[in-house]
Amino acid sequence: MAVGQSVPRVDAYAKVTGQAQYVGDLEPKTAYFAKIVRSTIANGRVTSIETGEARALPGVIAVFTCFDVPDIQFPTAGHPWSTVPSHQDICDRRLLNARVRVWGDEIAVVVARDRLTAERAAGLVRAEYETYPALSTPAEAMAEGAPCLHDEKPGNVIAHTSFHLGDGSFADAAAQPGAVTVEADYAVPAVQHCHLELVHACAWMEHEKITVVSSTQIPHIVRRVVGQALGIPWSRVRVIKPYIGGGFGNKQDVLVEPLTAWLTTKLGGHPVKIELTREEVLGCTRTRHAFDWHVSAAALPDGTLLARTYRAYSNQGGYASHAHAIAANAANVFKQCYRDRVSLDSESYTVYTNRPTAGAMRGYGIPQGCFVTEALTDDIAYAIGMDPLQFRLKNCVQAGYVDPHNGITMHTYALDQVIEAGRRAIGWDEKRAAYAGQTGPVRRGVGMALFTYKTGVYPISLETAACRMTLHEDGRVSVQMGATEIGQGADTVFSQMAAEALGVTLDRIDLCSTQDTDVSPFDTGAYASRQTYVSGMACKKTGESLKRKILDYAARMLNRPADGLDLRENRIVDETGAALLPLEDAAMEACYSLTDSTHLSAEESYHCTDNTFATGACFAEIEVDLPLGRIKVLRLINVHDSGRLINPALAKAQVQGGMSMGLGYALSEELLFDENCRPLNANLLDYKLPTAPDTPRLETIFIETDDPTAPYGNKALGEPPAIPVAPAIRNALLNATGVAVHSLPLTPQKLIEHFRAAGLLGGASHV
Amino acid sequence: MAVGQSVPRVDAYAKVTGQAQYVGDLEPKTAYFAKIVRSTIANGRVTSIETGEARALPGVIAVFTCFDVPDIQFPTAGHPWSTVPSHQDICDRRLLNARVRVWGDEIAVVVARDRLTAERAAGLVRAEYETYPALSTPAEAMAEGAPCLHDEKPGNVIAHTSFHLGDGSFADAAAQPGAVTVEADYAVPAVQHCHLELVHACAWMEHEKITVVSSTQIPHIVRRVVGQALGIPWSRVRVIKPYIGGGFGNKQDVLVEPLTAWLTTKLGGHPVKIELTREEVLGCTRTRHAFDWHVSAAALPDGTLLARTYRAYSNQGGYASHAHAIAANAANVFKQCYRDRVSLDSESYTVYTNRPTAGAMRGYGIPQGCFVTEALTDDIAYAIGMDPLQFRLKNCVQAGYVDPHNGITMHTYALDQVIEAGRRAIGWDEKRAAYAGQTGPVRRGVGMALFTYKTGVYPISLETAACRMTLHEDGRVSVQMGATEIGQGADTVFSQMAAEALGVTLDRIDLCSTQDTDVSPFDTGAYASRQTYVSGMACKKTGESLKRKILDYAARMLNRPADGLDLRENRIVDETGAALLPLEDAAMEACYSLTDSTHLSAEESYHCTDNTFATGACFAEIEVDLPLGRIKVLRLINVHDSGRLINPALAKAQVQGGMSMGLGYALSEELLFDENCRPLNANLLDYKLPTAPDTPRLETIFIETDDPTAPYGNKALGEPPAIPVAPAIRNALLNATGVAVHSLPLTPQKLIEHFRAAGLLGGASHV
Repeated sequence: MAVGQSVPRVDAYAKVTGQAQYVGDLEPKTAYFAKIVRSTIANGRVTSIETGEARALPGVIAVFTCFDVPDIQFPTAGHPWSTVPSHQDICDRRLLNARVRVWGDEIAVVVARDRLTAERAAGLVRAEYETYPALSTPAEAMAEGAPCLHDEKPGNVIAHTSFHLGDGSFADAAAQPGAVTVEADYAVPAVQHCHLELVHACAWMEHEKITVVSSTQIPHIVRRVVGQALGIPWSRVRVIKPYIGGGFGNKQDVLVEPLTAWLTTKLGGHPVKIELTREEVLGCTRTRHAFDWHVSAAALPDGTLLARTYRAYSNQGGYASHAHAIAANAANVFKQCYRDRVSLDSESYTVYTNRPTAGAMRGYGIPQGCFVTEALTDDIAYAIGMDPLQFRLKNCVQAGYVDPHNGITMHTYALDQVIEAGRRAIGWDEKRAAYAGQTGPVRRGVGMALFTYKTGVYPISLETAACRMTLHEDGRVSVQMGATEIGQGADTVFSQMAAEALGVTLDRIDLCSTQDTDVSPFDTGAYASRQTYVSGMACKKTGESLKRKILDYAARMLNRPADGLDLRENRIVDETGAALLPLEDAAMEACYSLTDSTHLSAEESYHCTDNTFATGACFAEIEVDLPLGRIKVLRLINVHDSGRLINPALAKAQVQGGMSMGLGYALSEELLFDENCRPLNANLLDYKLPTAPDTPRLETIFIETDDPTAPYGNKALGEPPAIPVAPAIRNALLNATGVAVHSLPLTPQKLIEHFRAAGLLGGASHV
Repeated sequence: MAVGQSVPRVDAYAKVTGQAQYVGDLEPKTAYFAKIVRSTIANGRVTSIETGEARALPGVIAVFTCFDVPDIQFPTAGHPWSTVPSHQDICDRRLLNARVRVWGDEIAVVVARDRLTAERAAGLVRAEYETYPALSTPAEAMAEGAPCLHDEKPGNVIAHTSFHLGDGSFADAAAQPGAVTVEADYAVPAVQHCHLELVHACAWMEHEKITVVSSTQIPHIVRRVVGQALGIPWSRVRVIKPYIGGGFGNKQDVLVEPLTAWLTTKLGGHPVKIELTREEVLGCTRTRHAFDWHVSAAALPDGTLLARTYRAYSNQGGYASHAHAIAANAANVFKQCYRDRVSLDSESYTVYTNRPTAGAMRGYGIPQGCFVTEALTDDIAYAIGMDPLQFRLKNCVQAGYVDPHNGITMHTYALDQVIEAGRRAIGWDEKRAAYAGQTGPVRRGVGMALFTYKTGVYPISLETAACRMTLHEDGRVSVQMGATEIGQGADTVFSQMAAEALGVTLDRIDLCSTQDTDVSPFDTGAYASRQTYVSGMACKKTGESLKRKILDYAARMLNRPADGLDLRENRIVDETGAALLPLEDAAMEACYSLTDSTHLSAEESYHCTDNTFATGACFAEIEVDLPLGRIKVLRLINVHDSGRLINPALAKAQVQGGMSMGLGYALSEELLFDENCRPLNANLLDYKLPTAPDTPRLETIFIETDDPTAPYGNKALGEPPAIPVAPAIRNALLNATGVAVHSLPLTPQKLIEHFRAAGLLGGASHV
């Protein structure tokens, strides 16, 4: 059994030895370097650009400005294409933009023989602007008289959606005898993915075919978007995705590929590369959406949740990217975690501003939605004086939950077990008792947060995947997935699934990590924690299909019916399990038989029409130093029901990585801007990503259910770990201090302000 | 109809613009350069090698000698693997060889950071030898007491085969009343392929996988041989074949790939390249086999061919490579062209010598066999005083010919039409009459030669091929062949076949030129003029298979049975031909349907169990300057029955290229050696390849038959054009001067010697 084993990553050796090839390794030796010239305002219009000095610099090949590019607007979100126009992503980008909507907008590009010359020449390009006021927040952008960023969206609101659930209203609920209500504003800031490998693409042409090698999560979508951006048939574009150094959703957007591809068309097909700096990646690619909320809750003193309201403003930044899909998802988790007996009212706005464009990031709105949901949950439990764990047990969704809007069903359920496992692991009841009534400057607390998370995007969008397997002459099987390895371990779990489906040992699987859209099976890519669930089924189907073909061939060799044959541990066996023929002998004969050579391969696609919920919770124990405004995380435990684990060791690593990301979201990460929307900390010195010394031991617990709709019982795991950490820490702070902070991150500056306001720092107010 | 059209080459634009990528374009930037250290003797043994000075040179990474390599012998011939040991190629090479058998044998290798350092260091390696006498010819090698080159073959004879056909004997025939006999020795020298691109490979590793990018005709065979040479499972090797600059059979041998692959294993997987110089390619890779023959013929005065005998000695050089397969094929053409009424006796020897290893070269023994066959034919016709064209018409094989040994059948026949077409085109009868009885120093003559040529290697060896096609979302079809483009136009004709089979226009075909053994369909490669016939059928089958899947999908879209649907010119049509749906709409829906997404692809393999004969002839008119010993070719006409032409323009270009090669074989090309088997002219200054000024207008005539066993009526075309040119010119010389020259090339030196001996130069003998 290959599935369920903690086998080492199939790419571990290549990655630790440096043999694994990334975009930089695959660039032709002669590639030019293209440096983007960026706007020095966030809102306005380029009136003129002077490029003569740049062009005159020796080594400069060409300079193109926003006045040179085709008049084509294209989308950038890594969503499956829809043949229904109303479901298509918003087309609001040009290759270069004269109408500037973000600080660092792409207004020109310099191509030179090398990076240094390109960078120097880029500094010589001078733009003149007509400048408009910069809009930092949805509130500013929605205000009367605010400049319109995109003509297609007067008022700057991209989308506004709402729904009501329940037979009553919040007012009904609040009017119930004894009902307690809370109501407040909450907010989370923009943060950045900080993937290890920068954004990097290289393109060249062969006749009409443009090849783009890119560090992307979504090669097939990049192909389509490049085709759209250049106005050419999509299959004229070939996208190669080698190993990539992380993405976390930033590379689920089409970032520099269209410009890189267009440049090679202007340079006679000569190879050209764009590699952004860390500063450009932090300040000028995508961020997690900042949100502002106004929410309320009503509950009875016995802990019965009656009703909630939810109003969200998602700060989209200058371009649509994934747009309202994020806000819609954030609203989902508010809905999908708890049972409001009377009503739930939800409305969400996604609003253009002049902040950096926000896009997909691990959790896709759910970390934001979980923060407000779980902060509100603790706040209402606090208001009625109830243990928040007990409150959750009483109100959380139950087995068999079905989302009333999209029909997504909890095919397997372990939320109760998840909560109980975390409760025991952290010693919840004992510590809640022990930490009651603390005084003094250093206090401790425990907190928790839970979440639900769907697996893939069906039925909101298309879920489809394909796989191809080829039996090589020596009995090994080459596996090509359309789905992508982005550092998360996909290649390893697909190898395990392939071995399992075929009945071979893992060493017989030779997974081709590179996707090449000219020859790889189709897949929409790595996002939405979909690949093990959706693409995994394509892998399983293909393995089963190839196995049937192998058994049919072996049956001809053995002159017996294929019905009774099976493939187990690399051997063709009969009904009793007795070995009849080694796989390698059948493979060699199939390839070289003088009477019946047949090159055995299988290719299957999987159209997915189901979905299922993963759930989980984070339990945090913290120590708060009130005068220093510092939170020290003592214990951090994530408990997950992600169905059956394909590879427990990799699952654990995935959870730990997500917890680390959640820790940064809780305590330190925040992109800062001045009033002109210019980034203030777009570098890894000033942007505070947690490092090893900042990180406590990360404890992981899995409750394994066996999901019937999945290839091997598995459910979403990639994104969930990052979701509940920040609200759990925030709630532990509430437990430790009684202070309810309504925004992230929980920086010392912010905590001291809150502690002062709460009177906890007493005479220290002048510190 | 895409098949039958003279469409431009699909790779033309990429090749003329320099966009096409060759091995050198795909090498990693960091690749080391490996320079082979070659023996300075042709026969002997390395007793010691001093490498200290080379290792000490700055920039040298490593030096390996023949004492460092694994004790594994492997074959190098580009033949399909056989699971029957007795049919496997001879394993007589090591990665580096202490037992030296050719001048320039590979005894060590220096790896350095760059080419210059590697070359300089290679010059610092000093070897000591034990030297044995160099064996130049089969006669020397077979002589009593000659040193044995390979212990496995005492006496140096690799193989000796013979057969007898007919009810009588040559003596019976010669004894018939009026019978005339001729008997003589003939010979052809070693020549070299002179492909434009040198021999070039680069290898690196990712974990256990060795990737080899190579300029090869046979990527799947290279994979297998590298696996054999390194003693590792074959699928641990991945071979990538990009565009290559010609091969002509030299790259149907596995030349530098095993050493390149082994080097990367010794260098921690670091990329390393070997690129031979022109001098190394000419002197140290493969050559066309030199042959020595003793043959005889007997005929009646009316032109009835009674009997022939054939004894051939094929000079194999130091290593087996393709070995006796060449001599066996050469004997075939002697047998397969004419009807000996009484008997045919044939025997062939393939003999190791210390000349450079001979291997595959365009025609694979048939240009040699055709020379002796067609020279002998003219000589016997001359002896009985009959027009050699009439003699051929009377004796050549007839429609329905079946080879008595292997059963290969002339499914279609046009040899009579071929001869008549050439006869008319060159004005044979008029010119034979006009040139009779010439005197004076400048004389003219016409000559001809015919040939038969089988298509592929069945049933001598395995014929198998595979293809994969994928429908892209915009209605274009990606085609992956295992078969390789080596400059001959394969990609273009496969594109045409794919378009034809699918029912789409050629611009919808997107052929992937690169083979990558990890993901490309299986094929044995480009040789034996097999690809349009064998691999073409895989292409056709796959196109038909994908078309069925497309129609099935369209039927679901259209809610009507698939039976009545067809795909024509990119549209789904009904029985009446009325368009129902554009292909691109079906493709887009198949990819993105929210209810039925299916990634349409097809992969088929073809096991070929047939063969067929192409035939043709060359007609030459020459002017001979007796005192200068110079032949000027006035007209050169090739007439071919290669079945139906897939692309007439490409077919014509293919024939012209072959004629040019035949012209060099006739007049100027010859590798020269000293008595120690050291090459004397292994460079393109001293080795006389014909250039444009040496080449007359090359006239081509096609007689198109429609072969029923082929995908589109087509038969062998790649190799045939080179075959009949040299004997046609040699026979024109006989016609012009009455001088029968029995060897090639027809150099001025040789001609003057012959003319003197014939008394044609009179008092000019002291010139």
